[in-house]
Amino acid sequence: MSCIEICGKSADKLQSKGFGVRRGNCLCLHHEEALYIAEKGIADLDFEEVFLKASKSGDFDVRFLVYRDLRSRGYVIKVKRDHFQARKSYSMKFYPINGSSRISHETLRARDLPHIMAVVDEEGDITYYLVDSADPAGEVRERVTIGEYKVAGSRVFLLKNFEHLGTFGKNEGVFAHLSNNEARYIIKDIPVEIDSDTYRVYQDLRDRGLIVKSGFKYGTHFRVYVKSLEEHSKYLVQVMKNAVHLEELSRGVRVAHGVRKELLLAGFDGDRVVYLSVSWIRP
Amino acid sequence: MSCIEICGKSADKLQSKGFGVRRGNCLCLHHEEALYIAEKGIADLDFEEVFLKASKSGDFDVRFLVYRDLRSRGYVIKVKRDHFQARKSYSMKFYPINGSSRISHETLRARDLPHIMAVVDEEGDITYYLVDSADPAGEVRERVTIGEYKVAGSRVFLLKNFEHLGTFGKNEGVFAHLSNNEARYIIKDIPVEIDSDTYRVYQDLRDRGLIVKSGFKYGTHFRVYVKSLEEHSKYLVQVMKNAVHLEELSRGVRVAHGVRKELLLAGFDGDRVVYLSVSWIRP
Repeated sequence: MSCIEICGKSADKLQSKGFGVRRGNCLCLHHEEALYIAEKGIADLDFEEVFLKASKSGDFDVRFLVYRDLRSRGYVIKVKRDHFQARKSYSMKFYPINGSSRISHETLRARDLPHIMAVVDEEGDITYYLVDSADPAGEVRERVTIGEYKVAGSRVFLLKNFEHLGTFGKNEGVFAHLSNNEARYIIKDIPVEIDSDTYRVYQDLRDRGLIVKSGFKYGTHFRVYVKSLEEHSKYLVQVMKNAVHLEELSRGVRVAHGVRKELLLAGFDGDRVVYLSVSWIRP
Repeated sequence: MSCIEICGKSADKLQSKGFGVRRGNCLCLHHEEALYIAEKGIADLDFEEVFLKASKSGDFDVRFLVYRDLRSRGYVIKVKRDHFQARKSYSMKFYPINGSSRISHETLRARDLPHIMAVVDEEGDITYYLVDSADPAGEVRERVTIGEYKVAGSRVFLLKNFEHLGTFGKNEGVFAHLSNNEARYIIKDIPVEIDSDTYRVYQDLRDRGLIVKSGFKYGTHFRVYVKSLEEHSKYLVQVMKNAVHLEELSRGVRVAHGVRKELLLAGFDGDRVVYLSVSWIRP
């Protein structure tokens, strides 16, 4: 590890404040620590000198801005390779990341859960997202059968015997219609076009006893109800096959937060569909 | 045009209600018209029979659902090849489109402006977006010069002489930093990594006298101020290089609506940056 050493009495003082790693009489400071110490005048380090050393690594700016923000919020921080172990009233791993990058479902769930993503935007402002595992479960068990149907465009129409669709489809009076996902769930071999990943998530959610409807109005794949359509939907579910731009994630969390729903990211672990919840927090 | 003919007295009655195109003694009805008439029992047409004819075209479901929704809202409609010319207290072109598709900036601005996009989701629910041209203009003229700088990671740091940055960058006390877009705007030949399309929009907005800041918290590229940073930002700007999923657009409009800002889509017409505003409406 490339570090900035400080020795003697200053080392003791800094160590007592939670900085650095002890090496005999000296303290080995990570770049973000040393720069923070220089900025705040906690010990006698020259800001510009430390800056020139520290700024050689590509993600230094992002790491430093998160480090200093957390310190200013009263966290005591241990610097790790790709995250900060930060402690205040609780202990949590914070992963600093640049807002212009992408992240995958796999990366998020390979980390300890829960953890916090600290996203640094162009302006250096930081948005914090709590990422946790989720195991959504519903209470709806339905058996729906349908008779004659017509596949037309991107949905399936029923012209008769559609009085007992339960939570599936939409009854328009003279006719009813189902989305292609709904139709496929009820009739396994129906010849409709579906996106196979989106359908896998649809199926998994329905199998969990949840009611799954279009999330279009919220800009996500699905909105999900736990008990009945009479209540508000609890979840917004985004199918996350590939890595997504953090900007897109930010937009999704913002919408979910605004309507007080939980945003779930659905990913794939082999045969299994796995869920992560992401929410905006103030640390 | 493949149409459904209805003749004699019924034809007169239907024509008086704004349906069809006259052909001698008969009226030639578009499929969505005929199906709507059958559904509502306005004339003696068999719903199933019309449905079977109409449902052969791929986008029939989307067209029919929008047609019937607008009719039920009291619009009188002329059916055109790719849109509905609809009239109530005003006359407007409505473009029906499937929520699972993509749309490009070019397509949107090739249509008459303003127009309304009628987006049909999986459930058959329709969301209406008013699309109009936009010509954002600000009142800020600044001359900012900076001295020594350090490019570090994804931003530019200033360690001294950063007292007069105006609306650029962020002054952190001991140091200041600029985003790469800001730095490039101030110092043309600075060696920073930028996305050239995003920068073109940044530059155009600044040249228009607007203050441009990160839109990350709203999930867009930029938030834009007209007069000063003391006021609320007026616009959220999304750079739209390629066609976007309507779902993504829905999310963007939702966020903008929630915070009472105007969503602008920035596209490229040769050398020019052109803007469209998109807002959610109830027709």
